[in-house]
Amino acid sequence: MIATKSYAAYNAITPLKPYNFERRNVGEYDVHIEILYCGVCHSDLHQARNEWGESMYPMVPGHEIVGKVVSVGNKVTKFKMNDTAGVGVMIDSCRTCKNCKKNLEQYCIEGITGTYNGYERDGKTIAQGGYSTNIVVDEKYVLKISSTLNLKAVAPLLCAGITTYSPLKYAGVKKGMKVGVVGLGGLGHMGVKFAVSFGAEVTVLSTSANKEADAMQLGATKFVLTTDKAAMKKYDSYFDIILDAISANHDFTKYLNLLDLDGKLLVVGLPSEEPKVKPFSLIKNRRSVIGSMIGGIKETQEMLDYCTEKNIVSDVELINMQNINEAYERMLKGDVKYRFVIDIASLH
Amino acid sequence: MIATKSYAAYNAITPLKPYNFERRNVGEYDVHIEILYCGVCHSDLHQARNEWGESMYPMVPGHEIVGKVVSVGNKVTKFKMNDTAGVGVMIDSCRTCKNCKKNLEQYCIEGITGTYNGYERDGKTIAQGGYSTNIVVDEKYVLKISSTLNLKAVAPLLCAGITTYSPLKYAGVKKGMKVGVVGLGGLGHMGVKFAVSFGAEVTVLSTSANKEADAMQLGATKFVLTTDKAAMKKYDSYFDIILDAISANHDFTKYLNLLDLDGKLLVVGLPSEEPKVKPFSLIKNRRSVIGSMIGGIKETQEMLDYCTEKNIVSDVELINMQNINEAYERMLKGDVKYRFVIDIASLH
Repeated sequence: MIATKSYAAYNAITPLKPYNFERRNVGEYDVHIEILYCGVCHSDLHQARNEWGESMYPMVPGHEIVGKVVSVGNKVTKFKMNDTAGVGVMIDSCRTCKNCKKNLEQYCIEGITGTYNGYERDGKTIAQGGYSTNIVVDEKYVLKISSTLNLKAVAPLLCAGITTYSPLKYAGVKKGMKVGVVGLGGLGHMGVKFAVSFGAEVTVLSTSANKEADAMQLGATKFVLTTDKAAMKKYDSYFDIILDAISANHDFTKYLNLLDLDGKLLVVGLPSEEPKVKPFSLIKNRRSVIGSMIGGIKETQEMLDYCTEKNIVSDVELINMQNINEAYERMLKGDVKYRFVIDIASLH
Repeated sequence: MIATKSYAAYNAITPLKPYNFERRNVGEYDVHIEILYCGVCHSDLHQARNEWGESMYPMVPGHEIVGKVVSVGNKVTKFKMNDTAGVGVMIDSCRTCKNCKKNLEQYCIEGITGTYNGYERDGKTIAQGGYSTNIVVDEKYVLKISSTLNLKAVAPLLCAGITTYSPLKYAGVKKGMKVGVVGLGGLGHMGVKFAVSFGAEVTVLSTSANKEADAMQLGATKFVLTTDKAAMKKYDSYFDIILDAISANHDFTKYLNLLDLDGKLLVVGLPSEEPKVKPFSLIKNRRSVIGSMIGGIKETQEMLDYCTEKNIVSDVELINMQNINEAYERMLKGDVKYRFVIDIASLH
């Protein structure tokens, strides 16, 4: 077994604290990764605090993992020692259902094997995430990462990146399309970068006027203050696509009304209350609301390769492991541009 | 001007009563139709009773109109005397916007010119619907109808027919697909007929066990009692498409959960309260909620021609004009299989 240092939530209310545990020995198809960086996703906080229910403790969060391969099982072909590798939101799935066979393991009929807050495939070991010094994962669920990129800024691609890349691709975003992004956080800022890179005209919609300059810096060319009724009226039926990356409670109707013919509201945020939809807003312009969950392994690799080619990474603020609880509080206030990433060296 | 007998709502609360008014003279592009039958749509009741707001009185409802052409303007080319013709939910639109130019006049940027409860294109004449002895409409918005069909059963195709045909076509329903229909009323029963005719396996979902036999008679091969939790669980992630034709208040989540990968909930019902959507249900299987409003004139004609070819009509109960108020009350109780149609001969 492999001794591992980490930070864990021991329950829903007390701060995360150090936690030592053991990873499984490296199996024949396993890749053993020494973790360098781990992004801090809003869902880490939701789950550490049991806001979605059914949390399991102690819980080591973290599913935006980048590191170096330190050993591989004897049947591993995809990786070798010293490769740079990544792990995202899932570490396995059933591999045999129709969705897994379509490279859409994120929609595995049995449910994905999550990187943390669930059991590994053996059904008894609690899977523990990336706020830790190392991880052992089957090579099929490990991603190749170019060492030429800024690795700390690559980590968030494993969740925030693929979560926004996949629906924008699914909706066919391309040159000339008008794309709006609401919720300019970890997900939203990646949504802006991808939509811009696909050639779309990108508009950031926000309740905070002070986000306009940031939006422009990310590549957006327009900004709409959503509390300004006249501005919102001007953009009625304007967009082809709106990426909704808001994690706070909100209704869909306000954004639906901004969609043009066959416009799509792509939902990737997961507020705890159920958003409402006005039927008249939905039938006007034949609008859609479409949900999307991360991406399959094949598409995640495609996204990482695309990011290497286009030099796209996340905007991050590096923190030490010891500052995770403070980072959660700042994240709740939206005080981060745009993703905290843990420097795992601070754990050793 | 053309003397016209009708039944109108004089306000939101008293029963519909006889009303005499005049139609415009037949213009050079107009078709003058002596109405034979007019279907009774749930939206007639919503608007007569001002349930959607902004109703205009006196209001002659009715937008499922079938009749005989009795005269045509001198520039009319599509119709001649004695042709059978139909009028649906719109009698005009701007004709110049990008949506009109795509034959999607139902999404006209200016808004359609409705068959009743709004102004005609002149901006001052109140448009009056089909609970009347005749109507004068520009030929571009008049549909050709085969006289070989049972005309009273054709009338509901002009709204209930196209409203269900269009989204099923848009969603690509075809042989082998699993289609569910919820809300087995005027719209829903047409949805079943169309989905069956497209080769899909059709399931009716209902809160009433006594609808099972009716569902089978319409061509469905499966029935799910939605109050039966075990049955609902069995159909979790089962359907490719669900047509939601429920006009009563309801949430979308219950039906969303029954959709398989890339499954689509097609919304055509217009409840007055805003349905809720659970984000986790939406992101699972990459599900969509898609709204749809009637269809364009070109597609409506295509649907009517398809119905002629396949001998598809609505299941109707013929009533006299004098029984309209009683019919509204029965409609509210769901006591109609599946559409009341007014025999306009009773008005003369």
